[in-house]
Amino acid sequence: MPAADPPRVDLNADLGEGFGRWSLTDDDALLDAVTSANVACGFHAGDPESVLAVCAAAAQRGVAVGAHPSYRDLVGFGRRYVDASRSELVADVLYQLGALAGLARAAGTRVSYVKPHGALYTTAAAGGPHGEAVVEAVRRFDPELPLVGLAGSPLLALARDSGLRTVPEAFADRGYTSAGELVDRRSAGALVTGSAEVAQRVVRLVTEGVVASVDGVDVAVDAASVCVHGDSPGAVDVARAVRAALEAAGVEVRAASS
Amino acid sequence: MPAADPPRVDLNADLGEGFGRWSLTDDDALLDAVTSANVACGFHAGDPESVLAVCAAAAQRGVAVGAHPSYRDLVGFGRRYVDASRSELVADVLYQLGALAGLARAAGTRVSYVKPHGALYTTAAAGGPHGEAVVEAVRRFDPELPLVGLAGSPLLALARDSGLRTVPEAFADRGYTSAGELVDRRSAGALVTGSAEVAQRVVRLVTEGVVASVDGVDVAVDAASVCVHGDSPGAVDVARAVRAALEAAGVEVRAASS
Amino acid sequence: MPAADPPRVDLNADLGEGFGRWSLTDDDALLDAVTSANVACGFHAGDPESVLAVCAAAAQRGVAVGAHPSYRDLVGFGRRYVDASRSELVADVLYQLGALAGLARAAGTRVSYVKPHGALYTTAAAGGPHGEAVVEAVRRFDPELPLVGLAGSPLLALARDSGLRTVPEAFADRGYTSAGELVDRRSAGALVTGSAEVAQRVVRLVTEGVVASVDGVDVAVDAASVCVHGDSPGAVDVARAVRAALEAAGVEVRAASS
Amino acid sequence: MPAADPPRVDLNADLGEGFGRWSLTDDDALLDAVTSANVACGFHAGDPESVLAVCAAAAQRGVAVGAHPSYRDLVGFGRRYVDASRSELVADVLYQLGALAGLARAAGTRVSYVKPHGALYTTAAAGGPHGEAVVEAVRRFDPELPLVGLAGSPLLALARDSGLRTVPEAFADRGYTSAGELVDRRSAGALVTGSAEVAQRVVRLVTEGVVASVDGVDVAVDAASVCVHGDSPGAVDVARAVRAALEAAGVEVRAASS
Repeated sequence: MPAADPPRVDLNADLGEGFGRWSLTDDDALLDAVTSANVACGFHAGDPESVLAVCAAAAQRGVAVGAHPSYRDLVGFGRRYVDASRSELVADVLYQLGALAGLARAAGTRVSYVKPHGALYTTAAAGGPHGEAVVEAVRRFDPELPLVGLAGSPLLALARDSGLRTVPEAFADRGYTSAGELVDRRSAGALVTGSAEVAQRVVRLVTEGVVASVDGVDVAVDAASVCVHGDSPGAVDVARAVRAALEAAGVEVRAASS
Repeated sequence: MPAADPPRVDLNADLGEGFGRWSLTDDDALLDAVTSANVACGFHAGDPESVLAVCAAAAQRGVAVGAHPSYRDLVGFGRRYVDASRSELVADVLYQLGALAGLARAAGTRVSYVKPHGALYTTAAAGGPHGEAVVEAVRRFDPELPLVGLAGSPLLALARDSGLRTVPEAFADRGYTSAGELVDRRSAGALVTGSAEVAQRVVRLVTEGVVASVDGVDVAVDAASVCVHGDSPGAVDVARAVRAALEAAGVEVRAASS
Repeated sequence: MPAADPPRVDLNADLGEGFGRWSLTDDDALLDAVTSANVACGFHAGDPESVLAVCAAAAQRGVAVGAHPSYRDLVGFGRRYVDASRSELVADVLYQLGALAGLARAAGTRVSYVKPHGALYTTAAAGGPHGEAVVEAVRRFDPELPLVGLAGSPLLALARDSGLRTVPEAFADRGYTSAGELVDRRSAGALVTGSAEVAQRVVRLVTEGVVASVDGVDVAVDAASVCVHGDSPGAVDVARAVRAALEAAGVEVRAASS
Repeated sequence: MPAADPPRVDLNADLGEGFGRWSLTDDDALLDAVTSANVACGFHAGDPESVLAVCAAAAQRGVAVGAHPSYRDLVGFGRRYVDASRSELVADVLYQLGALAGLARAAGTRVSYVKPHGALYTTAAAGGPHGEAVVEAVRRFDPELPLVGLAGSPLLALARDSGLRTVPEAFADRGYTSAGELVDRRSAGALVTGSAEVAQRVVRLVTEGVVASVDGVDVAVDAASVCVHGDSPGAVDVARAVRAALEAAGVEVRAASS
């Protein structure tokens, strides 16, 4: 998915993260800013009725729908590691991919990619049995589906070795170390704030392939998709600012899975 | 699905009705006796790993896999009416159909029909908003999928009016009134016991189109599929006896959805 | 619990209605306005950690903690009727009362009353098996605990007949018919809006024992507690306005269970 | 809880481990053999109605009811580590202790001790934040409640340091290393089989304070309670054999918490 002549990038955000009476994200506003929607599949969030509505809204705007499978952990929002066996996890991911695919189809769209959520994102990124489980599930569900994951992570290597397409991803509002890794969430510099600041970082990332690390050095990050967060205050403003800045810089913003 | 020259019938049973540590049915033995497996989709039973295993076992034996969606009610095993809205239920059924389809695909098979489970079976059979929701979900998921339901029920009329194929079903071990309806479970004569007795009833039903009612009168029941129960003691014996008696009587036992 | 010389009333609101990552109500602000907190017990909302926090905050302010048990229906927020058996429901309510009592005790307070939530509130109000189940559960858990329910409802009669203390309740922002019943939520006049308007209705209710019906006639409503809603926009403003108006009118605002 | 003049021991087993339609253990038969019942609290198993029934059956036989709290993991039966925060886990355990206490009270008995279940048992045994969370929860719920845990484990030291009573436990049918630790479940010698063999090991353990290790050496194990498993085939036979052998050897079999 490397950018060709005119620089190109995908913007993705997590959507559909409510459950019944509860909602979290301003899905409609975010869908106007992004090109790919990571849609919850019911294990960390996402009741079927609201997921169906998100899929319909994405279909209407031509936004790609991606599956956002998680450990089964509603109360923990999928943010807690669960020591599932590899075979359990393969089946859990298949179940979620299928469930979302059923809703997406009824909404007139389809699942275009897979991006693990929360603790599963982090654990799978490192490879290991849970990374293998994610790759196996995607391969068995539909070997044409690209897998979105952390740029440079062992997971993407595993996926490529299995013949899957991969979409390396960067984070719009996360700090990077000079080694090109994400700054731990509990450390200073973990989060970049301010719409303008975030937008400028993303433009550099896409047009120059670098991001300024917390140490002040530029580091290379090769990302075909950039994640903007949807569940923080001001999330919509940041997403809009990023989109506008990219377009102003002549970047084509388009789903990586298309 | 009416029987043609050589009489023909489908035998179906509920399978995959465990959840994690718990299991209920002898799935392997039942799969050797039936032609259609109603597989739990996670809302009343059916953890993904065991559902995947059931799908694989069904695929191996050429048994058709059907979706067995339920109200969301794990603790009540889907046997309790839940006052869901029509739109909630459409999405809940779509979610379950998709989830099972994902697992079935990975197991080398596919969902071939839909049969609602438990309280949803009963409520939807009467038509009404929940019957409409089931029909709408099947139609939106895949209008080619047949719907299995109670022979003569308003649900099947609704489904046909929507353009769906329908498979009218009878119950091997349930008593019928002289009006051709099921005897209430709490009344005398609700259950027929004894493998031989049950088997003979099914043979008559298929070859003559009648069943002896609790009042002693023969009533016409037009069924293309017969349900044998899987979760009672002796269930496997009954299923085997029914299958053997049908074959001895020259009946072709074959999935209605094939 | 009828008002004596200086008029007196209890103000209650539903709190702790989040679940994990999701929250709904501004619990701290509401706790400053009410005298009784109906705390979710985990079946419709209320993860243990946030419930423990709500109990601690209530304890700090001297607000009475009440159990707010529900049908087991997280995705439906307890707003859907579930056809539970009477014995299931007795056990479900006992489980929830105990769970909240454990958290309340650890927070330095205790469960002071019981008020059913959502669809269980409505179903139990009419008496019947679910009303009996609620009464039986409270009686077996602690026969000293008062039951809060709809003023004039069969449930309260059942409870009194069983020897339970009862607290008849009115709703601050709901319209009443001239028969003294709540206007159906889907009809005109179901909701009264505007802090000042709501506050004045509550003052009349408490000091005069009447409320203006949608037909313009005053109807008698005998309530010892008044429910202010916590999960609508402006809920905190309404609660504060009601509290201030009552105190300005010389009404003693105090927990009914104390 | 060390044995005094006439040797004495407690026999405990896990009970109430069904959920709705599913059951696992022959609770009535086990209750006739043991003196302490570790009762599921709903997070790994244990729907309220069946837990209430188990409590009533235990009360009838004078068997002590213990709380058997777990990680929230129904599909994994509490056997999978969940990376909960310490404060989440404190609240989760409090919730479960309270819930069981409510049901036990209604059944005419009470919670007499706490023994963590499954992965929480193992994780907490090692001390650490999850061990501390268990101790904190018990202390805040009722500092008089004894904690049952692995003999010699850091958890019991933590608990004693917090002022809790502790009950060191051994396993009737598990192999021990010559260091006095349990043989890993995946290694040879992990399980001891045969009622007579198991019974004789328990008698030696109680009367001599030693158990033969997999290496053939006797190792000292100081246990006040012995766990017999309830969910394996033949579990009831083993439990009865152990009980009979102990009584034949003049050992007093009595709840450690009494």
